[in-house]
Amino acid sequence: MKYCNQCGAELVIEIPPADNRPRHVCTRCRTVHYQNPRIVAGCIPVWQGGILLCKRSIEPRAGLWTLPAGFMELGETTVQTAARETLEEAHARVEIVELYTVINLPHINQVYMMYRSRLLDLDFSPGDESEAVALFAPREIPWGHLAFPTIRHTLDFFVEDQRASTFRLRTGTIVKEGQAYCFRIDPGQPA
Amino acid sequence: MKYCNQCGAELVIEIPPADNRPRHVCTRCRTVHYQNPRIVAGCIPVWQGGILLCKRSIEPRAGLWTLPAGFMELGETTVQTAARETLEEAHARVEIVELYTVINLPHINQVYMMYRSRLLDLDFSPGDESEAVALFAPREIPWGHLAFPTIRHTLDFFVEDQRASTFRLRTGTIVKEGQAYCFRIDPGQPA
Repeated sequence: MKYCNQCGAELVIEIPPADNRPRHVCTRCRTVHYQNPRIVAGCIPVWQGGILLCKRSIEPRAGLWTLPAGFMELGETTVQTAARETLEEAHARVEIVELYTVINLPHINQVYMMYRSRLLDLDFSPGDESEAVALFAPREIPWGHLAFPTIRHTLDFFVEDQRASTFRLRTGTIVKEGQAYCFRIDPGQPA
Repeated sequence: MKYCNQCGAELVIEIPPADNRPRHVCTRCRTVHYQNPRIVAGCIPVWQGGILLCKRSIEPRAGLWTLPAGFMELGETTVQTAARETLEEAHARVEIVELYTVINLPHINQVYMMYRSRLLDLDFSPGDESEAVALFAPREIPWGHLAFPTIRHTLDFFVEDQRASTFRLRTGTIVKEGQAYCFRIDPGQPA
């Protein structure tokens, strides 16, 4: 960020009055340009115990499998984002069941919110960002070919809860430690 | 948004290739400037059944009472935001218990995430954005002088669950209908 999107003048990084951290501030009109994390919302679409996954056709992680999910847009609710992404990436219609995972990714300024959902019919097919869409029984999930740590942890929790027939909200943070991604469970939840 | 923050050239609104909605796009360097909703995270700090509220000293809603909450910053987790805002607005230290409300506000592009928390001691005082901080027994909550609908609904749910001694995640959307704000409960939750 180098220029003011309001007046076009150059920006400097400084702590504005009554603030406590450095921001991008316009040298001419003094507008403060805040930056904030973004929400990624998506679904775990289920049909008779099977889970709908999409094989990505675009970078990052082209060729790997993921749950339908994407950035929340202005004017949407998180539930609407989750359903829209499922329609766009898998041409699939779902009924949202409930919020299932809230996963912080502070190293890339994202918060994932994944919803359990019921797939309404079997009329699905690859959207623009997918090269394949398929239902996987829990034992068939391609664990070695998943696109993102958030998706792996969400599926891991889901399969565990599905086996126990009791679903509960899972919240935590994915922390990058060297080359590995570890899930740190938030306070207040059973390990 | 009128100018590119990367190169300073003028922006136009158009649908970029492989996208499906209008974005601000730079006429020179073609950078697409996405806009996304922001997360507000905060706490319901509790001490022996009493709830810590802050009387706002700044606009919007100066003079009205609120729970400590604020915009999530880059590099933070939602739990860290909630605890930091409580420290900044009420000079209060908390232990986070669990995520309690997730409230979408699509008309202002915000998502509130409020955490139940235990106040660790009685050493609290007004921060820069507060003119007073005080503990309120449930029956003493100043319902007619609360700053935001998100706070009113969160406190309403909290007092109801506190009475029943059973807390459960509440998720939904605040919809502006005329001059009133209605809470629409998300799918999958008891009414």
